[in-house]
Amino acid sequence: MIDITLIGTGALQPLPQRALASAAITINGHILLLDCGEGTQSVAKKADVSLMKIDAILLTHYHGDHTYGLPGLLQSIGMAGRTEPITIFGPAGLSENMKPFMMLCPYLPYELRFMELTDENGETAPMALKKLIPAMPDGFMLSHFKTEHRVPSIGYRFELTRLGKFQPQKAKALGVPVNEWKRLQKGETVMVGENAVTPDQVMGEARKGLTVVYTGDTNACESAVNGAKNADLLIAEATYGENEQEETANEHGHMTFSQAAQLAKDAGAGELWLTHYSPMVDDPEAYRENAVGIFENAVCGQDGMKTTLRFEE
Amino acid sequence: MIDITLIGTGALQPLPQRALASAAITINGHILLLDCGEGTQSVAKKADVSLMKIDAILLTHYHGDHTYGLPGLLQSIGMAGRTEPITIFGPAGLSENMKPFMMLCPYLPYELRFMELTDENGETAPMALKKLIPAMPDGFMLSHFKTEHRVPSIGYRFELTRLGKFQPQKAKALGVPVNEWKRLQKGETVMVGENAVTPDQVMGEARKGLTVVYTGDTNACESAVNGAKNADLLIAEATYGENEQEETANEHGHMTFSQAAQLAKDAGAGELWLTHYSPMVDDPEAYRENAVGIFENAVCGQDGMKTTLRFEE
Repeated sequence: MIDITLIGTGALQPLPQRALASAAITINGHILLLDCGEGTQSVAKKADVSLMKIDAILLTHYHGDHTYGLPGLLQSIGMAGRTEPITIFGPAGLSENMKPFMMLCPYLPYELRFMELTDENGETAPMALKKLIPAMPDGFMLSHFKTEHRVPSIGYRFELTRLGKFQPQKAKALGVPVNEWKRLQKGETVMVGENAVTPDQVMGEARKGLTVVYTGDTNACESAVNGAKNADLLIAEATYGENEQEETANEHGHMTFSQAAQLAKDAGAGELWLTHYSPMVDDPEAYRENAVGIFENAVCGQDGMKTTLRFEE
Repeated sequence: MIDITLIGTGALQPLPQRALASAAITINGHILLLDCGEGTQSVAKKADVSLMKIDAILLTHYHGDHTYGLPGLLQSIGMAGRTEPITIFGPAGLSENMKPFMMLCPYLPYELRFMELTDENGETAPMALKKLIPAMPDGFMLSHFKTEHRVPSIGYRFELTRLGKFQPQKAKALGVPVNEWKRLQKGETVMVGENAVTPDQVMGEARKGLTVVYTGDTNACESAVNGAKNADLLIAEATYGENEQEETANEHGHMTFSQAAQLAKDAGAGELWLTHYSPMVDDPEAYRENAVGIFENAVCGQDGMKTTLRFEE
C-alpha cells in the first residue's frame, strides 16, 4: 500500500490557494517528501501529513519554487523533537546547493544526511536505501531518471514489488517445516537439513506491484517516458494550460497539459495527476480537456489531494 | 494617511490558517514591509498588498519565523520585473545574516541595499531615509528601539508628522504673494524681496500626526514602552494567551496577551493589535479578555487584517 499526497501544486510563486511544488509518498507510515517549495509545511499540516514522519526529502532540482520551504520545514521538525536522521536526495550539486539552507538552520537536533544522485539514471542500491531509510519495507525500490530542465534535474520512481503467491505444496515437497513458511514468504532463505530453500522455489510468479512516478520539472522527453513506464500513478509537471504554449514550454524546460498527457500515454501509465501550474493558470480545470483528449485518466492535481494505491486482490 | 496590513500573525511555525510574522505599512502607495516569515507573499497577495510596491523590508531580528519568506519574496519581485532598488533594514548582524538569503537568490534584476541599525535606539536620519526610500513624504520619520529577545532585536516606529494650520493673515502681513503660499504649506522657505519667510512664521502650532509601532519579538520592557509612546496603533507580539504563561514568556523573550496589553497601557497607545501567536494558541479570541481587562482597545490580529489611520479633521 502506498499513500500519495499532492501537497503544493504551484510553480514559480505561491498563491493564496496554491502552495509551491511538493508531494508526499507514505509507505509503512513513513514519509518520503518530494520537493519542498514555500508553503509545504502549512499544506502538509492541513492534509494530515505528519512532518515528524518524514525520513527522506527527494529534490528533483534546486530551483527556489522546489526548495524554499526547506529551512522552515527542517526547523519545525527539529522543534517538534525529532532526533532520527533525515536524508536529502538530489541531483548533481547537492552539497553546494544545500549550503545556504544549512546556514539558515545550523542547530537541528537530528542528523541530516545527503545522497547525491550523480548518475543521470539509476537505482538506489537496496543496501544504501535500507541504511538511509530503515523503515522502508523489503521490496521497496527507489530509482531516478534524467529529466530535461534548465539545470541538472531528475524525476523519481517508487516501486513496491510483490512476491508471487506462496505455494504450500512446493514447500511441503521440499520438506520445509510449517513454522518456517513465514520466513520464506518474507523473502528469506531457509535451511532444511543441509539444503538451502530459497523463496523463488516456493513462490509463484511475482505479482504486479505498485509504481508511482514524479517528474519534477521537465520538457517532454524520452528519458521521462522511460522513467514513467507503466506507472500506476504518474505525477507530472504541467506548467502551461494552453496547447499554444508548447513552444514556451519547450523553451523553459516545462510541459503543457497536453504534453504531460502524451507522456502518460507513451509511458502506458494508469493515471496522471497534473501539477506545477504556472501562476497564470487560474483554474486548471479550464484546461483539463487538453489533457483528457490525449490521455483519459488525467486529473488536475490540487493542494492536499490524496490517494491510496493497493495491491490488486 | 497610513494603511496598515497585518500579513502573517504566527510564531515559530506556519499553520494552514496563519502565516508567519509580517506586516505592511503603506504610505503614498509605497510599502514598508515589516519582517518576512514563510507565507508572507501568499497572504500579501490575498490581502491586496502589491509586492511590487515594497521599497524597504524592515527586519526586527533574524529568527527564521521572521525571515524565511525572504528568498521567495525577493525572487517573485524580481520575476515581476522590478528594477528599482529595495533596502533591507535590520539590527546588528545584518550582512552576516543576509548572506544565505543572498546565496539563494543571486540573480535579482534590482539592487538590494542594506542598512544596519547598529545603535540600539535611534532615528534614521531624514537624508538617509529620503535616499533609500525616495517615495516617502516629507514629515515621515522612521525610528527604532531596542527590544529584549534572545538575539539582537529592535522594534520600529513610523511617524507621519503634521504641520500646523496655515495662517493666511500672517502670510499676508509678511507680504507673501498668494501663489507662494503652497510652498510654505509644503514646508519650503520663500523669499519676499530679501527676507526669507519660513513655514513656522505662517503656520500654527504643529498638529497631531500619525504613529504606528511594531514591536517584533520582545519581553515586556521599558525600552518597548518608550518606543511605543503615544502610538496611535501599537502592533505587539503576544506569543502566549494564558496569564500563567508569563514566566515562560519572560524566559523566551516573549510576552503574554496581558503583558502586551500592559505595554500598550503604559505607552498610552490608542489601539493595540496582538500578533505573533504561538502555534498552541488555536483561537486568539479565546484569550482576548486577558488583554482587554488591562487595555480596552486590544484587538486580536488576524492574517490580512487592515486599517487606515488618517489625520484628525
